[in-house]
Amino acid sequence: MAAPVVAVVGGGQLARMMAPAATALGLHLRVLVEDAVSSAAQVVVDAPVGEAGDPVAVERLVSGAAVLTFEHEHVPNALLTELGRRGVPVHPGPDALVHAQDKIVMRTRLTALGVPCPRWAALDSAADLDRFLDAAPGERAAVVKTARGGYDGKGVRVVRDAAEAADWFSAAAAGTGAPLLAEELVPFTRELAVLVARTPSGEVRTWPVVESVQRDGVCAEVTAPAPGLDPATAAEADRIGRTVAEGLGVTGVLAVELFELPDGGLLVNELAMRPHNSGHWTIDGAVTSQFEQHLRAVLDLPLGATEARAPWTVMVNVLGSARESLTDALPLIDPQVKVHLYGKAVRPGRKLGHVTVTGDDLTAVRERARVAAALIRGEEETA
Amino acid sequence: MAAPVVAVVGGGQLARMMAPAATALGLHLRVLVEDAVSSAAQVVVDAPVGEAGDPVAVERLVSGAAVLTFEHEHVPNALLTELGRRGVPVHPGPDALVHAQDKIVMRTRLTALGVPCPRWAALDSAADLDRFLDAAPGERAAVVKTARGGYDGKGVRVVRDAAEAADWFSAAAAGTGAPLLAEELVPFTRELAVLVARTPSGEVRTWPVVESVQRDGVCAEVTAPAPGLDPATAAEADRIGRTVAEGLGVTGVLAVELFELPDGGLLVNELAMRPHNSGHWTIDGAVTSQFEQHLRAVLDLPLGATEARAPWTVMVNVLGSARESLTDALPLIDPQVKVHLYGKAVRPGRKLGHVTVTGDDLTAVRERARVAAALIRGEEETA
Repeated sequence: MAAPVVAVVGGGQLARMMAPAATALGLHLRVLVEDAVSSAAQVVVDAPVGEAGDPVAVERLVSGAAVLTFEHEHVPNALLTELGRRGVPVHPGPDALVHAQDKIVMRTRLTALGVPCPRWAALDSAADLDRFLDAAPGERAAVVKTARGGYDGKGVRVVRDAAEAADWFSAAAAGTGAPLLAEELVPFTRELAVLVARTPSGEVRTWPVVESVQRDGVCAEVTAPAPGLDPATAAEADRIGRTVAEGLGVTGVLAVELFELPDGGLLVNELAMRPHNSGHWTIDGAVTSQFEQHLRAVLDLPLGATEARAPWTVMVNVLGSARESLTDALPLIDPQVKVHLYGKAVRPGRKLGHVTVTGDDLTAVRERARVAAALIRGEEETA
Repeated sequence: MAAPVVAVVGGGQLARMMAPAATALGLHLRVLVEDAVSSAAQVVVDAPVGEAGDPVAVERLVSGAAVLTFEHEHVPNALLTELGRRGVPVHPGPDALVHAQDKIVMRTRLTALGVPCPRWAALDSAADLDRFLDAAPGERAAVVKTARGGYDGKGVRVVRDAAEAADWFSAAAAGTGAPLLAEELVPFTRELAVLVARTPSGEVRTWPVVESVQRDGVCAEVTAPAPGLDPATAAEADRIGRTVAEGLGVTGVLAVELFELPDGGLLVNELAMRPHNSGHWTIDGAVTSQFEQHLRAVLDLPLGATEARAPWTVMVNVLGSARESLTDALPLIDPQVKVHLYGKAVRPGRKLGHVTVTGDDLTAVRERARVAAALIRGEEETA
């Protein structure tokens, strides 16, 4: 019984969390990992070591595979295009993936699709940024981003003067840094996210819209569904998610991070074309997890149901820890808490795991999850 | 960050389904498998090949392990006793495990504990069986069992005459077969099961009592909770489960299979000291699965919550299939169904996987699960 092989680029926690889903569905997971002790390599039997940009390594990865997919966007697009030309199914495909790799391409395309975005501009020079700052309706401020290579707050800088991005402009001009863009500093009331899955055949499913709390540019806490969300805003978020998935031809899971504005309006913040931190709650909180759904989607299988399994689910990230070994915290954790550890060495602020709690009472659910995460972080007092 | 190593004897689907739970908790699973393509070996990175009865293989298995546990009971007890003497934590311990290995020891001990059992007797000869048959209150019939080595209906025979077990008596007398016992043919109305977890520290948790339907001695379908179960009977089943776990000093997960009698009384049928088919529903239907709970229990961690996550959960086994590759069925399966395939080669009647459905309407839930299992079995018509 030869199981379909799903080839995944990247050996972090996202690939790791695909493993249980692959096990249940009887799929063979093969993961290209950065090193033999990476998060995914600890739990995936077939985990060759290699660089995402190494054509030889990727060639071996896709040998006999039913599909090639990713847990991060940092893969050379030309390589994927070449594989696709040779008939290797690549999902999401390079034409879609480029929108998650390059923020200028993404903003250009979303704008063309009529998807609401922050005011933005590609920047060729400091003078461009000055003009963008001058045009700011309120405070003279902007968010400058590198078009490529950023994640978890890296490659993002809030500036009030073009000089604050001088190093980035120099690097871009010298060809050692990515092109830059500016976005308005959005006066949002909170951040939301909509998670979508789409198959090559065009089936689309969305999960309930969530609220996401970021700290230092990193996802810290997610509540599903977003508390007190106006049903019209929820429907609009859902519509935006579907529009982006269909408009960009995304296959697999797509996360659309959104700003909610004081008037209930929405603006797209970022896209990710893979399982995403804002969707970790689905493992314990939805009928189908984002990891199972991603596997289903890239294999063009029917998508699983996406309803929430409880009135409330709260996911709290474990970012850094005072502990050397996180499993030492297991004796302390409340029996209702679902713990997910990533097997990673402890470093300050690093995503080391997450916890999820489901239930009827949001306040109690949130408190339980925060206390558990704090205990795993080795903190005496809770957040 | 050295993760605690949980060493498991046996490479079947039970060890396989421990893998996702170990991944989430950040534990290192090491499984002694019968061969390199066994169900668990496909999804466990650290899966040495060896025989459960080979002291050298078991010695390597437990090297550096925090605990040794099992997915089946067919392990030489003397070997476990020796490991325990040397300070290797073995859970369940050999003194408990013997009750799952030897049905005469089990019946003797349960009888001493006052746990309700079918009328039974150890058999030294065909004459003993004749006397047992003669004493049957109703029909002259009995269930003859080999005390050791039986499972899934093997080593069990319904007889109406001692001659029908003549071959087993010859083998037992020659020392080539196991000792025999007889049990009354219980006029049960249905079969129930109670699943218990107990830690070395003595914490005990039980899941809701389930109804289990057997076909040809093999678990076919499980409904949680058991429909229409009298609360007093449920409480009595729970009490029996706890009494057995505590009385026998079981550590880890214990499944107690029960007969429900026309008057609501209960008799213990069989015991299993490991995750059990009657508990597969807990993966999708309970806050904590039996696989996570078994890992927690044998490591003496606090036990997870055991409440059901939905009013009804139905689990249907996939026993044999007309398909060569079960994943071929995935495009046909309802989006609400949770599929669990074991990666095993297809053989008639073999446990190849299971499906689980949760929901509010038992009839709809059961129908959905049965249809999905039939589709995976490759049947045109549903069961």
